[in-house]
Amino acid sequence: MSGRLFVIGLGPGAADQMTPEAAAALEAAQDLFGYGPYLDRVPVRPDQTRHASDNREEISRAAAALSRAQAGATVAVVSGGDPGVFAMAAAICEAIESGPPDWRAIDLQVVPGLTAMLAVAARVGAPLGHDFCAISLSDNLKPWAVIELRLRAAAQAGFVLALYNPVSRARLWQLDAAFDLLRGILPAGVPIVFGRAAGRPDERIAIVPLSEAQADMADMATCILVGSAATRLIHRPGLPPLVYSPRSQG
Amino acid sequence: MSGRLFVIGLGPGAADQMTPEAAAALEAAQDLFGYGPYLDRVPVRPDQTRHASDNREEISRAAAALSRAQAGATVAVVSGGDPGVFAMAAAICEAIESGPPDWRAIDLQVVPGLTAMLAVAARVGAPLGHDFCAISLSDNLKPWAVIELRLRAAAQAGFVLALYNPVSRARLWQLDAAFDLLRGILPAGVPIVFGRAAGRPDERIAIVPLSEAQADMADMATCILVGSAATRLIHRPGLPPLVYSPRSQG
Repeated sequence: MSGRLFVIGLGPGAADQMTPEAAAALEAAQDLFGYGPYLDRVPVRPDQTRHASDNREEISRAAAALSRAQAGATVAVVSGGDPGVFAMAAAICEAIESGPPDWRAIDLQVVPGLTAMLAVAARVGAPLGHDFCAISLSDNLKPWAVIELRLRAAAQAGFVLALYNPVSRARLWQLDAAFDLLRGILPAGVPIVFGRAAGRPDERIAIVPLSEAQADMADMATCILVGSAATRLIHRPGLPPLVYSPRSQG
Repeated sequence: MSGRLFVIGLGPGAADQMTPEAAAALEAAQDLFGYGPYLDRVPVRPDQTRHASDNREEISRAAAALSRAQAGATVAVVSGGDPGVFAMAAAICEAIESGPPDWRAIDLQVVPGLTAMLAVAARVGAPLGHDFCAISLSDNLKPWAVIELRLRAAAQAGFVLALYNPVSRARLWQLDAAFDLLRGILPAGVPIVFGRAAGRPDERIAIVPLSEAQADMADMATCILVGSAATRLIHRPGLPPLVYSPRSQG
């Protein structure tokens, strides 16, 4: 008799941005799996077993969680933001596809969460107000040439871009390479939003023109929004500017 | 002394998918503005004034809400899903930009919500597991040629697509035109997810290959996910298949 597996999105980090659905799934779990800093956001309960792992170990974490669920436990795998956006839901599916047939019978429920680009966008106005793309800048799992192709295609077609995983300790040059590529396509004044830890105590939001965007303005906790040529700033006396992408474009 | 304006995302519809932050902002409001069916999701409170309007009246709704806030009230404008994704946050910014200077001093807070594509994706696995785009198929505010350009660019570059506003009573041919265009680019077997009213009692989820996708499978409450060539199905005995887009691609 197999158990249940929840793949839960904790949202960007603020407690009041996690859905009640996610809170209920956490409540039901006997075993919690996740990257350490995400697990640290979940209040400790002595009757739950916690299995923290590093952020490069998605597939082994997925397999361990599926094994526990297969053994009958109610298991939660937690992701920051939304589990379906550059996070654990795809890793769980990959593990199911290549794993033992019994794993396909596990009661799997993906519980969505607020993904970072929505939280960052809300802080500055409506930068995602028209068509947009989400791109991971990590070339751990796809070639850099694919990332360049997608950045170019999306910027040329007038999408706003949300850049996830912009830098890491091991990936330093990719973000500046992305900005250089984008400077060849978009006007110099296009607003770039660096949204770090949106909604958390250590939140830091910066808005700069594309001409001044640099990789050292971002860290691992940053989601970057790149405007389109249509994206505009509204200046406000005594308040930060609003950034928005108008609904109408031609 | 001007008041406050919250622009609130109610999420896809299920009460347990609305964030506590959104619930608190609704609680604080004296005046509620929104498209009728979204306002209907908010429990009636006799001390709140409700201003329902039609879904083609975003700018006049925005102006009315800003006027009330300017007059000192605490005002909430509600959107389904996330207010920053094809919804009211951009309309509010447009109204501020072209409105009286005093509107720029209003305390504006955008409260994010779960947008439809995340809720639909969670129902079927991890179809947004790699880079993806969100495109509105409505040509009320942008030319159809721009939409075609973006569909083509995104599909050719290997993005998964989330199609918002796929059809309306007045727009019937656009979705079939989009599927025809995509059939010229993507393999016939690419999974298409029709996600209607995710999380609500009238939810309906269908998965078909691109070759069989037709506009009459969608209505105004549907968000459509179009896989990339890499998107896969995992068949499960006695359960619906999982749809996922692997994190690694080349």
